[in-house]
Amino acid sequence: MRGSPAETEVREEAAPFAFPHETVVTWQAPPLRLGADSTRDIGHELRQLGVRSVLLVTDANLARLGLPDRVRGLIEREDIEVSVFDQAEIEPTDQGCEEAARKLAGREVGGYVAVGGGSSIDTAKMLNLLGSFPGTDLRRYLNKPIGDGLAIPGPLKPLVAVPTTAGSGSECTAMVALGVAGMRLKTGISDLRLRPSAAIVDPLNTLTMPPAVTAASGYDVLTHACESYTARAYDHRRPYASPGTRPIYVGANPISDMWAEQALLLIGRYLRRAVFNPLDLEARTGMSQAATFAGMGFGNAGTHIPHASGYPIAGMVTGYRPRDYTVDHAFVPHGESVIATAPAAFEFTYAASPRRHLRAAELLGASVSGVTARNGADLLPQTLLDLITDTGGPRGIAGFGYAHKDIADLVAGAMKQQRLLACCPRDVGPEQLTRIFEASLTG
Amino acid sequence: MRGSPAETEVREEAAPFAFPHETVVTWQAPPLRLGADSTRDIGHELRQLGVRSVLLVTDANLARLGLPDRVRGLIEREDIEVSVFDQAEIEPTDQGCEEAARKLAGREVGGYVAVGGGSSIDTAKMLNLLGSFPGTDLRRYLNKPIGDGLAIPGPLKPLVAVPTTAGSGSECTAMVALGVAGMRLKTGISDLRLRPSAAIVDPLNTLTMPPAVTAASGYDVLTHACESYTARAYDHRRPYASPGTRPIYVGANPISDMWAEQALLLIGRYLRRAVFNPLDLEARTGMSQAATFAGMGFGNAGTHIPHASGYPIAGMVTGYRPRDYTVDHAFVPHGESVIATAPAAFEFTYAASPRRHLRAAELLGASVSGVTARNGADLLPQTLLDLITDTGGPRGIAGFGYAHKDIADLVAGAMKQQRLLACCPRDVGPEQLTRIFEASLTG
Repeated sequence: MRGSPAETEVREEAAPFAFPHETVVTWQAPPLRLGADSTRDIGHELRQLGVRSVLLVTDANLARLGLPDRVRGLIEREDIEVSVFDQAEIEPTDQGCEEAARKLAGREVGGYVAVGGGSSIDTAKMLNLLGSFPGTDLRRYLNKPIGDGLAIPGPLKPLVAVPTTAGSGSECTAMVALGVAGMRLKTGISDLRLRPSAAIVDPLNTLTMPPAVTAASGYDVLTHACESYTARAYDHRRPYASPGTRPIYVGANPISDMWAEQALLLIGRYLRRAVFNPLDLEARTGMSQAATFAGMGFGNAGTHIPHASGYPIAGMVTGYRPRDYTVDHAFVPHGESVIATAPAAFEFTYAASPRRHLRAAELLGASVSGVTARNGADLLPQTLLDLITDTGGPRGIAGFGYAHKDIADLVAGAMKQQRLLACCPRDVGPEQLTRIFEASLTG
Repeated sequence: MRGSPAETEVREEAAPFAFPHETVVTWQAPPLRLGADSTRDIGHELRQLGVRSVLLVTDANLARLGLPDRVRGLIEREDIEVSVFDQAEIEPTDQGCEEAARKLAGREVGGYVAVGGGSSIDTAKMLNLLGSFPGTDLRRYLNKPIGDGLAIPGPLKPLVAVPTTAGSGSECTAMVALGVAGMRLKTGISDLRLRPSAAIVDPLNTLTMPPAVTAASGYDVLTHACESYTARAYDHRRPYASPGTRPIYVGANPISDMWAEQALLLIGRYLRRAVFNPLDLEARTGMSQAATFAGMGFGNAGTHIPHASGYPIAGMVTGYRPRDYTVDHAFVPHGESVIATAPAAFEFTYAASPRRHLRAAELLGASVSGVTARNGADLLPQTLLDLITDTGGPRGIAGFGYAHKDIADLVAGAMKQQRLLACCPRDVGPEQLTRIFEASLTG
């Protein structure tokens, strides 16, 4: 075959260099409008997207506070039709989204607006998916092994996200977190088509968040930033076989690092202030930026143990009622579920990159005077525990009602989040997770 | 009128707070693929964009080196038709782009791929515009007062940018720089629709850049980062009357600051190395990132005096032939034109924010030991001059053939760039510009 046309063709198509590891960072983000009263631009934003009718997705609690009404008025002023769905579940489930979509079937809309926390934004993403491609169960899109990891078959309609918490970063990410009905589980759907078309991040919309909701949302930001910053780097992975097999979560990289560092700095400065004084607009502005910045980072880099562990913690709970949430059933707010194992998780991952763990602690406000790689394993965990304690958060999973006997089930649930565990900078299996959950019982 | 419906309506539509200054940052960026051999993803990228035929825009010099051929092969492998235009001008003009568009008229393409420096990418943007909306002179789109500042009337076709220099950042910005035929002038077109649909930033594609081109491109990155970092802040401006009147250049803001700081750090580490040793892949990677990162920043924040001054410097030149460029007429590379007045410009702007000027110098590698706001006005200018000297660049505009007698014309040309001068952190008029050009004659 030497010198045959086929061989020549293969040679020409081969890369000019062959790298033993992956070399490419992929990164995407929606257009942002950031700042006090940026909400007033929403009609303009929708017109630029060519949308003439929208479904505004929000939750009942926000609807009572009145913000969705103001947003509706702002949109209608631009001659865009608005219908409202104000029954987004707090911590949505596949079943809840499917029921909502059935109720809404037949309403033709040109786009979506989400006004709310991660729950409302994720619900809007799911209603957009179910409305655009009816007839496929959400379960099929869920990440493997819980679902089939089915790819969304085509473009969705424009979605503009208006977060009212400073938490999930869902306004800029290509994923949702969903409870799985009947399985006491939570997992996610990841697909580039889920990324909102635009994000309007207005700190004024977060002023009504009560302290415990501010804290829980803040813990989500905190773990997003810490996890993506310490995630297995994009170039510490084998090359992907083809561009279509690149994951959305490519690992820590120079772009996500920048966003994570900035988010950590803002959290260190502003989380306590936002919890202590809901009307501190400077702190609310800082935390709004922190949430979006962390989303710009982790949404491309990924998260690892605390988020993988948070899913079963939230999914299996039976008796916990958090403060400041108006919900009529037991549940753990996502932010509380992910922060609870974070101190133990970062003690475990410390050895993979002491420099990054120490830098994260420093950005959060810890002193690194006298701290070296050898004696610093405790610095980030302790910094997190101080922040949790000051803001009234959970120092461990015992507070949610979990005991030793539950740990095997929690580990089994976390092990199902392989998409996230792949981002852990150390190999992690049931044995390591068991130790982390044990250490996280009481903090 | 008290209590009348009209009054009630006005009240409901009013903002909940009234700020005396602007509060909103707008920010956009294309999806990025960044890293060695990311070029191999180009066919996949175009398929994701739904494109079945493209015009590949490049320049004759690159065509000789062979990269456009490789890119064409990679695209054709995905069953996408490719036609090639390899006559992009170095430092394109409105007339040159219009002539090219006339030659290409009748070729129907679904999208564009630009392979080259800022000149090829800007030419592709213009061919896309002229192909999508034939019959309108480019001059009408040029920024006022040189053009009419006409808005592009509708969406353009997808454009994927593959930069081969580390300079313009045009792969992520919503603007082009154009020479204006018959006017010895350069200016720009700014419109959100000009932003590429995707950027593939592959340092391997920059390895063939000769030293003087590497240096000049690097000066463009350097001034982008320094100017956007020191630009009048987004919230030191009057509120815009409506969202449609927001400029693309909103001024320095927390997002652009982050990109600018990271770009400065990379330039300080890698520009000299990339100029001294073209095959230093680590330095090429750093400079590729720096160029794109600076573009992510300045493309939303803006530039000011050095860029405003660079336009007439490049537009009026009659006798200068730069090293390492294969061009048959007198011209000043864009990067050289903007760095030449930078030291004097930053000495002038220093008082607006000593902290930022000192931080920029520090990120570039200068020592700030013993430097205070009072004694530091010279630090950034001197740091720039050292970098220019080490990399063989222009220490002043006398090197391009300009003398005292030309300064009035240069000032008049710079004064036409009001869109940029509005971003200057101090008010700047003919008197200040005269002093800056005088001080920039010999550096």
